[in-house]
Amino acid sequence: MATLLKNISTLLTLEGAARKEGRRVLEEDLGVLEKQAVLFDKGMIQWVGPTGKVPKALAKKNVKEIDMKGKTVLPGFVECHTHLVFAGDRAAEFEMRNQGVSYQEIAAKGGGILSTMRHTRKASVKELAATGQDRLNHFISQGVTTVEVKSGYALNLKDELKVLQAVKDLQGARTVATFLGAHALPPEYKTYESYLEFLADEVLPVVKKKKLARRVDVFIEKGFFSAEASERYLRKAQEMGFEILIHADQMSLSGGSDLAVKLGALSGDHLLQITDREIKALAKSEVTCVMLPTADLYTRTKYPPAKELIEAGARVALATDFNPGTSPTQDLNLVGLLSRLEMKMTLPQVIAGYTVGAAHALNLQKEVGSIEVGKSADILCIEQDWKCLFYGVGERPKKAVFSRGKKVFDSLE
Amino acid sequence: MATLLKNISTLLTLEGAARKEGRRVLEEDLGVLEKQAVLFDKGMIQWVGPTGKVPKALAKKNVKEIDMKGKTVLPGFVECHTHLVFAGDRAAEFEMRNQGVSYQEIAAKGGGILSTMRHTRKASVKELAATGQDRLNHFISQGVTTVEVKSGYALNLKDELKVLQAVKDLQGARTVATFLGAHALPPEYKTYESYLEFLADEVLPVVKKKKLARRVDVFIEKGFFSAEASERYLRKAQEMGFEILIHADQMSLSGGSDLAVKLGALSGDHLLQITDREIKALAKSEVTCVMLPTADLYTRTKYPPAKELIEAGARVALATDFNPGTSPTQDLNLVGLLSRLEMKMTLPQVIAGYTVGAAHALNLQKEVGSIEVGKSADILCIEQDWKCLFYGVGERPKKAVFSRGKKVFDSLE
Repeated sequence: MATLLKNISTLLTLEGAARKEGRRVLEEDLGVLEKQAVLFDKGMIQWVGPTGKVPKALAKKNVKEIDMKGKTVLPGFVECHTHLVFAGDRAAEFEMRNQGVSYQEIAAKGGGILSTMRHTRKASVKELAATGQDRLNHFISQGVTTVEVKSGYALNLKDELKVLQAVKDLQGARTVATFLGAHALPPEYKTYESYLEFLADEVLPVVKKKKLARRVDVFIEKGFFSAEASERYLRKAQEMGFEILIHADQMSLSGGSDLAVKLGALSGDHLLQITDREIKALAKSEVTCVMLPTADLYTRTKYPPAKELIEAGARVALATDFNPGTSPTQDLNLVGLLSRLEMKMTLPQVIAGYTVGAAHALNLQKEVGSIEVGKSADILCIEQDWKCLFYGVGERPKKAVFSRGKKVFDSLE
Repeated sequence: MATLLKNISTLLTLEGAARKEGRRVLEEDLGVLEKQAVLFDKGMIQWVGPTGKVPKALAKKNVKEIDMKGKTVLPGFVECHTHLVFAGDRAAEFEMRNQGVSYQEIAAKGGGILSTMRHTRKASVKELAATGQDRLNHFISQGVTTVEVKSGYALNLKDELKVLQAVKDLQGARTVATFLGAHALPPEYKTYESYLEFLADEVLPVVKKKKLARRVDVFIEKGFFSAEASERYLRKAQEMGFEILIHADQMSLSGGSDLAVKLGALSGDHLLQITDREIKALAKSEVTCVMLPTADLYTRTKYPPAKELIEAGARVALATDFNPGTSPTQDLNLVGLLSRLEMKMTLPQVIAGYTVGAAHALNLQKEVGSIEVGKSADILCIEQDWKCLFYGVGERPKKAVFSRGKKVFDSLE
């Protein structure tokens, strides 16, 4: 049965932003319209227009009408960078870090990424899928309809596959799995190079064959995976048909964004350390620049040059980077608040970054990110003025969320 | 009927912190105990001890038993500085501020505190109480059982009384009303001095007579209410029997904390600009130092010297400063996160700051802030390891909340 959202007080189509492919977004690109209606059927948007003007051919059908008076309707948010599936927490380590204990000491005490690795290796698919589902539900309750999830806390063949299987088991929103075996060096390997060879030769073919992920990510950083070794690895991944993306230039300018441009990566993520040179190169490229300001808050570093990227013409997306170590938050409002407060992004840029921009980062721009005929009915209906979005952290306005036309969350009723 | 919370996996009594009156709190002062039980009746805590050792005299009674296996039980949080009751929002102004529009220009466009004043004057008691109740419920859902609420967005006799009446109408948690007529200069007055005289002569006597508040607060700041004029005003308030507190040294070192010490105020709030001299004076005094780090985040200023205050022996409390202009968030986790990350407070200090410390700020330390026999049964039961508190912003662990022994929130079942 088709669904008609009618009497929508304010509709944000994001059509203009989509047409500009998420670059240099202005308020006019949000497509703010009053008294609108959206009709969808079989998971797809069929018609968008003024309430009361539904074409007769469509209106004849069996249609479920939902009144959206007083609501703002916009595309479901796209969360394009998370490490959603892991076991354990790193709260004790957080306390140590704030009280001045060095990363080396924390690692020596069994902390850091290898602590999450130990917990994750021990957990079953079922356990990982259960906690992952709780977390996914929390995203959905905020209006998120697409969530990217990276592996990379198991760091061996068997358990990385297990994590990706858990991602596959998640329900209620569109999920996009990314293989991030190249996240850290596991204790079984002595060099980053030999570990990357193992991943390329023994893990990627299995991930491909089992269709557990179509994307490969790598953490390029001085002292970790080098740009040179990563280039060989990512080229092999591309040859196998994987899309690629890069954790780039977070702690040091280490060649990550250069490589993203060179190889045509879908996204370069973090980008704190880039200079004018990289900004220009990224702006000219098709690489989406993913900003992760909550990670920057938790690690007390600086924020990436989002405003400069946008002004240069780059496409910017926003995400939580949700992970137990450096960004233990799933709060989209906090991401948006920091983007406005610390990176001076405008509210329209934040909204576009969480819809059109993030859709591009996942190569899903033809399916999600805007409310247009032919796109997936991934829709957020929220009892809030759009100008109050990404402002008050922790607010919980009433909302209904549709994923592929199916209602997956509802606190309006 | 009495209630027994039994099989509590981890109980935090905060008894040691209460004994130290919230000063120099260490982990051992949290009173972390395993396999405990708490018995309460008629709103008061009757007994605390190991599960299975309830004294026979008490056990004989008709007791409702609730199993708290897997839960952490601690005192309900005390939120000691809010501007909870107001009308309108200031989201558009937030966007302007971030995009470089000056405060003067925003004020000229009708923004700032007088914009909230206009909306608040227009609203009815019923409307103010309804939005206030929604916001109070949001605090309660986070485990808050006591909330301070300031007036100060009406700035005339009739409407300030209306706001205080709305505070009185709130339900579900203990509320403490504070009269903050001296929040800003209303358009009807030309000088801060003449407005303070009006407040002292014509408003405070009515507030007193109608028992609408027992506390008086003033915003002391260069260019706003001076320390000299405020001293005369606060002395008059004290003579009428009001407790006093001060918005002190937020934007400039302007005599606020000095005056708090001199007059024996319950609290000095903000304190960003204080130096070693004020730190020492506050440490020796009975003034509770209220830190409001989300306001510091939203205003992009610095954070107050919480660690130095604590080390000097001062009592520190934490709060959201929830208000539409400079801290539009009710998120306790964000307050705690910033306290740890930016002010280097330890987790035990944060927990004490939100219980014992804040109880002192409200002169309620004999009633709330710790789980001890004779105190009010204001209790938070949460499905979370206590070491994960004040860490992940936006998390919503399951919980039950009791206010004066009555269950006011429950997501455990």
